[in-house]
Order: sequence, then structure tokens, then C-alpha cells
Amino acid sequence: MNMKFLSLPCRYTFNRYLYSSCSVKDILNTQPEGCKKKLKGWARGMRKMKNNIFVDLDDGSTHRHLQVVVPKNKVPDSLSYGCSLEAEGVLVKNPNNQLELVAETINVYGSCVVEDGYPFGARKTYHPEYVRQHLHIRPRTATFSSLLRLRDKLSVAVRNRFAEDNFIEINAPVLSSNDCEGAGEVFVVKPDSDDLIKEMISKEHQSPMEAFFNGQTYLTVSGQLHLECMARALTNVYSLGPTFRAENSKSRLHLSEFYMIEAEQAFINNIEELLSSIEKTTSTVVKQLLEHSSDEIYHYRKIIDASKDNDPVNMVNVPYEIISYQKACDVLEKENCFKNKMIRGKPLAKEHELFLVKYNGQKPIFVIDWPKDLKPFYAKAIPNNESLVYAVDLLCPNVGELCGGSVREDNYDVLKKKLSLIGMEDKLNWYLELRQFGNVSTAGFGIGFERFLQVLLDVQNIKDTIAFPRWPHNCKM
Amino acid sequence: MNMKFLSLPCRYTFNRYLYSSCSVKDILNTQPEGCKKKLKGWARGMRKMKNNIFVDLDDGSTHRHLQVVVPKNKVPDSLSYGCSLEAEGVLVKNPNNQLELVAETINVYGSCVVEDGYPFGARKTYHPEYVRQHLHIRPRTATFSSLLRLRDKLSVAVRNRFAEDNFIEINAPVLSSNDCEGAGEVFVVKPDSDDLIKEMISKEHQSPMEAFFNGQTYLTVSGQLHLECMARALTNVYSLGPTFRAENSKSRLHLSEFYMIEAEQAFINNIEELLSSIEKTTSTVVKQLLEHSSDEIYHYRKIIDASKDNDPVNMVNVPYEIISYQKACDVLEKENCFKNKMIRGKPLAKEHELFLVKYNGQKPIFVIDWPKDLKPFYAKAIPNNESLVYAVDLLCPNVGELCGGSVREDNYDVLKKKLSLIGMEDKLNWYLELRQFGNVSTAGFGIGFERFLQVLLDVQNIKDTIAFPRWPHNCKM
Repeated sequence: MNMKFLSLPCRYTFNRYLYSSCSVKDILNTQPEGCKKKLKGWARGMRKMKNNIFVDLDDGSTHRHLQVVVPKNKVPDSLSYGCSLEAEGVLVKNPNNQLELVAETINVYGSCVVEDGYPFGARKTYHPEYVRQHLHIRPRTATFSSLLRLRDKLSVAVRNRFAEDNFIEINAPVLSSNDCEGAGEVFVVKPDSDDLIKEMISKEHQSPMEAFFNGQTYLTVSGQLHLECMARALTNVYSLGPTFRAENSKSRLHLSEFYMIEAEQAFINNIEELLSSIEKTTSTVVKQLLEHSSDEIYHYRKIIDASKDNDPVNMVNVPYEIISYQKACDVLEKENCFKNKMIRGKPLAKEHELFLVKYNGQKPIFVIDWPKDLKPFYAKAIPNNESLVYAVDLLCPNVGELCGGSVREDNYDVLKKKLSLIGMEDKLNWYLELRQFGNVSTAGFGIGFERFLQVLLDVQNIKDTIAFPRWPHNCKM
Repeated sequence: MNMKFLSLPCRYTFNRYLYSSCSVKDILNTQPEGCKKKLKGWARGMRKMKNNIFVDLDDGSTHRHLQVVVPKNKVPDSLSYGCSLEAEGVLVKNPNNQLELVAETINVYGSCVVEDGYPFGARKTYHPEYVRQHLHIRPRTATFSSLLRLRDKLSVAVRNRFAEDNFIEINAPVLSSNDCEGAGEVFVVKPDSDDLIKEMISKEHQSPMEAFFNGQTYLTVSGQLHLECMARALTNVYSLGPTFRAENSKSRLHLSEFYMIEAEQAFINNIEELLSSIEKTTSTVVKQLLEHSSDEIYHYRKIIDASKDNDPVNMVNVPYEIISYQKACDVLEKENCFKNKMIRGKPLAKEHELFLVKYNGQKPIFVIDWPKDLKPFYAKAIPNNESLVYAVDLLCPNVGELCGGSVREDNYDVLKKKLSLIGMEDKLNWYLELRQFGNVSTAGFGIGFERFLQVLLDVQNIKDTIAFPRWPHNCKM
């Protein structure tokens, strides 16, 4: 075979490394005063003075803008608020000791005529609900571009926390043949093409919903069961991915598609170690964010007028308070201020959760020792008190429940009985079989990723913490 | 309100930081000779000698095992291949200068009786297809636990590459109201509960498939269009998440649920910069992996008997070769060895792609300048040659196409015409509107994450690169 391919006349040659990016973030971090630079971005603000126009150049790399000074005689006609542009010039310090670019050339790529329907005017603030109606333009607002950067930073911090303790990231599947807790609030999936369904239907699987995968297939509500399988080989595992609920909820705390941080650890058989692991996760993650991104966090909190009471520092101060479900009920019973009355043996309502957090000085609080009927089948009974299980909810400011976890039932016979009671023995046979060979105890927890952002930033509505929110009657773009 | 909560008698106290993990990886990395340690894991191998039993202890933290020496008089009955155990003892160097743990106590947590149905015998190797039939036990095999660790390492390396260049990670939505390229191979979604559907149905949306979200809702086939929206605010963005294809393909290169690395960059309007960005991604990611994980990579490749021809180093050596679609056809035309004849103007078959890679010495090769009919509507026409578009496929050993990318059509009028031709003008109005305000050029690419693993590790079947593979007629667990 002719391997002299490289000398064929078809070869393209060009300098592939000619293009070096230069971001506003890099410029503001390195402060290359006196250098000539070319920058690209959008005009997020403009002020006309006598001899110059001042443009706030934003390229999305940071919440800080670079001020570009454009001499009046160099201003293109199309330069306006919202346009995209390239500016070349020298970086100088202005009288306020702020770096700015004195433009020698300005090119406008794309104009922006607010009158043609651009939804956001210059120097105007809007209600989040209005902004949300323009999902595709929303990232261009100062508030939401900050949110997106902080969301990225949060996922980096979460991954760092787990990597430091030798956790391995697992991609739990989105498509699943079981619905985890059996709560029933699931989406089901089929191919769009009827021809394909016809082609794939079989004697055993005649329903269109079963044709493609030989069985009903759900969107995952939790990767926990799959992670348990992994922890029983890799010891410490986690996932950070999308989960789904088909629930007709209009709450400010629910989405149909949301992200979950889930961790599972082998060789944990007690609640204390589980609480330590949760506390370490939330506190070290927030600590890392405050170390590296406190500027942007407090910039964002200032824009949205966040409450000063629930400062993110509250998440860093450990140990968190711990209370049993029964004692929590005692506290709630003394109060008569609730719309929903607290009933012993029933789940806590959102207002009960938030009350407990407030009672605890707007600091996180663990609720443990739950009645077994309030937790799923996989929670392990507390030895010597079989009516309670080793389960925990972590309650936090703004959202109430941020995290739920449990020690998992590891006794083969007990689990077999439980599964048979809920009619899942066949479907979850693999889950039972995990306990049959080289069995170990495991424990784990799940943290709502968007709720974590709500706690950190005091965002009122969860729809404002995710790029493309999906909720009942809403799946835009 | 009483804030003296902390003094309530309900407070639990215990030392939460009593439990420090100690992994085989840490022990082998730090070599704490002479120290007493307690380790937990599974017995992956056992050798009985005259006075001792040697156990290969594996806790999933590394591909290397720690040898535990158990004096015969301390061997519990249930100690066997596959069991879970805790071993406490002193770390010493054996005559081969290898660290080993001389056990003082051994506790077996869970036994493993192969005869009861454990699918993998000691010291046996199995065909990947057999191993795959036992998905829930598969992570306990040496091959697949290595794969899972390397998969984690690959995603870390990908995220590092993008973070270094100020890319912001975006979670592109799984649920989408459009099917991106309009190729039609999509899954659709509805709630499982008929009651819920009845409750949510409206006059405008009477179909059960439209009730929940007020419209047909798909599982994403690509996050590209959503990322374009983000790049037009944040400049450089990427995503690494699940995508779906409802395709009845039994190929060794296709899954129904797979992961994609997708990147989108604003202010790129030419193919050269796009190729640079792709090349930088694949080469720096593999370089990082070879720097930090070459031990495990070559350990894995040795177990599966990987071909020496397509060494991962081939991915690091830049620049990659570049060839036009027409010239690629010229090369293929000269050969008569294909099952599928090459037809000019038609897509390249897998065997054509693999031939081009072989022809290029098993090194990656870019194919550019594609006929416009072979690429989706959003690819930008090459100025002065409107029959071709600025699009690229990166072909690699083992898999053929690893990556596809293009410069996107940024002209409002041209795009409007294209969308109207394929009847998507209404549905993708938001996509068009992105070009109306502060318009910029963008370019981007998508890399199949599992295929990347196939290239790196020479894995023949894509089903062996993902924890829970889903393909036609198969969605286990």
C-alpha cells in the first residue's frame, strides 16, 4: 500500500495555530497595560461623552466588563447597545486605575435594533419570569450569564471534591428498565417512527411502548440502584447527571428535568459515616467556590437582592446540627403557624422544613431516624428499632430538603421479602443478586444540583438555575 | 423565636471524622512500609501455599492489587475467590520488593460461592459478549473496572482541556422540542400515568404525546443548536452528556444512548480555526491521559490484546493530515476492494473511512469540503463554491468517524430560506432569531465519547465502553 499519502497534491497547508484567543477575563487577570490587543464580544452598555463613546465589552468569560473607549470619529453607524463587535487598540489605565482599551479600530459584526424585537433594553432590569420567556436570549443578560458561569463552577467543585477522595464518576443511564423507588412519576419512551416500531415489534413485545427495547423503558428518576452495583466493585462512586419526574407541579422547587449529584460508598453501615460524607461534600464544595469565585457569587447575589441571612458561609461551618425525626416533630408541634398541620408519621411539608432551618439560625440541619414508611424500600432498618430506618434529609435555607440519603438494606433475605411485598422481586432480581456474592454494606445520598445553586445564590425559582428549564406545559427550544 | 436550638437535648454527638478511608491506590502510591493499616475490598485472586494464603485485594481504586498474606491459622472458612473482606496488618516489602500486607486479622463480610451462580470463575477469561450478559457483575472483572476508571479519566481530561481555554460547560437539555437535524431517528416521551395525561390534556394538545409539555417532546440527538444559543452569549461553550438515537442498528459502533462531547465557539468563520480546535481537543486530551494514566491504558490494552498499529500516541502527533472529500474519493476510486462501492456525492461507508485511515498509516485524518447535500442545513456554504460546505469529519483508527463539525450558517436570509425549504421555519424560529441581534459567526464539533474510548483503547464493541449499554432490544437494569 502506498503510504506516501503526505506528499499527495491534495494536502492543505496553513498555520493552524495562528489564532490565539484573547478573553476579557484573561486581560483583566493579567493586566497587560500598554499592550495592543484585539478583543471580540458584545456591547452590553454604552455611554456617549463629548469626545468619546464608552462601550462595556462583554464576551461571557467573566462578569466584569472591559471598557472600550471609542473616539467619536471612529464610531461606526451600527455601533449600538447589544451589537457584536471587534475592537483593536492599546490597553491603558484610566484615572480610576481601571484598565481600558483605547480603540484604534472598531468593527461591528452584527447590529442590534431593539425596536426590531430585541427583548431587553439598555440599562433596564426585568422580572425573571419575563426574562424566562426569551430563553434563547436570556444568556445575554448579566444575571443569567453569571448564573451559567457559576453553574459550571459548581460542577467543577463537585467533581474535585469526589476526585480527591478517589471516587470514580459513573454515567448512570438515562434510559432504565425500572423506575427506582417505584413512585410511578416516570416518563416512558418510544421511537417516534411508527414504521420502526412495526419493524421491531415481536410476539413477546407487541405494545409500541415495548417494541424497541423489549420492554417498557423509563427516563431515570435516580441513578442510585445502578450506582450501588458500581460501588460493589469500585468502592466509591458518584454521578452528576440528568434525572426526570413526570409530576404536575408548579412549585418554585421542581423541574421535570433536573440534575442530581449522587454518591454511593461501599463499607459504610452506619448513619454517622454517611452524615460525615454528606457534610464533607456540601461544605468543601461551597468552601472551594467561596475561595475561587466569591467575587462572582456576591456580584450575582447583589443583582438579585439575595437575603443576607442565608449567606453561603453557613454551608461551610461544620459540624451541621443533627435532629431526629421525632424531635423535629416535637419542635414543630409547639408552633401553630403552619398552613399544613404537622402530623406525626407523615412527611414534613416544605414549610415545616423551612421552619426547622430558620429555627436553627438559617443553618443546614440533618434530620435522621425516619419512620420506615416514609422512606423507600432500600433504606436499612436501625438494629433494635425496626420501625425506624437509617435515613437522612439535609434541610437548608431557601429550599428545605437539599439532600436525601440512607444506609442501604444489605441483608439478602430482608431485601428479598421487601421486594416481594412491593412486587419488584422479578424486575429487581439483579439488585438482590448484588447481595448474594461478595456482599458489602453501602450507603449513599443524592443532592439536587439546581437546589444547591438555589441555596448558594438564594435563587427563588429553580427555573432560573438551569439553561433550558422543563416543567409542566413547558419545553421550549 | 428561640434560637437556642443547639442546647436542646435532642442533639446527637459523635466524632464524625473518625472514619478515614484508606485505599489500595493510596497505599501503593505512598508505600507506607512498616505501617499498620486496615483495608477493605474483594478477593480477586487467591493462591494457597504451604504456610500462607496469598489474596489479591482489589477495592476498585486502581488496576493494581495489593497482595495480602494470610497465615494458614488465621484463614476464615468463608475466605474464597470473590468474597468481600477486611484485612488488618503491617505493610512489608516482599523479596521481589513489592509491598504486601501481612494480615493479623481477616474478616470476611460476604462470601462468594461460584457454584451458586457467580458468573465469573477464578483465573478465567471470558468473551466480552458473555461478560456483557452479566451487566451487574461486570464491573467486578479486571477488564471492565479498568475501563470504568479510564472512562472517568477521559472525562476529567476533556473537562480540563476546555476549562484551560475558558470554555463554560453547559448542560444541554435531554428533553427537546426539536430533533436538531431533522433526521427523524428520535425517541419521544410521555408520562407513564394515564391519569396524569388525562389531567393535563388541553384543547390545543389533545394527543397523549403532547399533553405534558404542550407539544411533542424528543430525547435530544445533539445539543448543538442549544450550544449555538449559548456561544452567542458566552463565546466558548461545551457539553458532555447523553444523546439518543432510535435506530435499529446492530453495529459495533452504535448505541441507543451514548455520550457526546460537543463544543461551540463564537467568532470562528473559517474551517482552519475549527480544525485547530478539534485537533487541540483530541491531541491534548490523549496527551494528558498518556501522562497520567499510561500504566492503566497499556494494562487494559494488553488484557484485551489491542492492536499495536493504532497506538494512542498517533492521536497526539499533530498536525493531522487533511484531505478534501473529492480527493478522498479519488483515493478510494483507485481501490477495488470494497463491499460497498464508493459513489461520488454519496456518504462514505465505514469501510471507506477505515481505508482512508489505514492509507494514512493508522493516523487521524480530516476530511473537509463536503458536498452540501451530505451535511445538515446549518453547515455554511464555502464562499465562491456554493456546492460545498465548511464541514469536517475526523476519521480515526478502529472507528472511522470520531468527530464531525462545521462552520454554522450565520446569514439570516440564507438560513431563513434553508429552514423554510425543510419546513422548520416555525419550529426553529428561535434559532433564526439568534442571527437577528448581535449576530456573530460560530463553529463547533461533536465527538462521540464512547468512540473516543474505542480509539484510545482499541475496544472492538462500543457496548464494552459504557456502564449500562442500551441498544435495540436491550435495556437491561
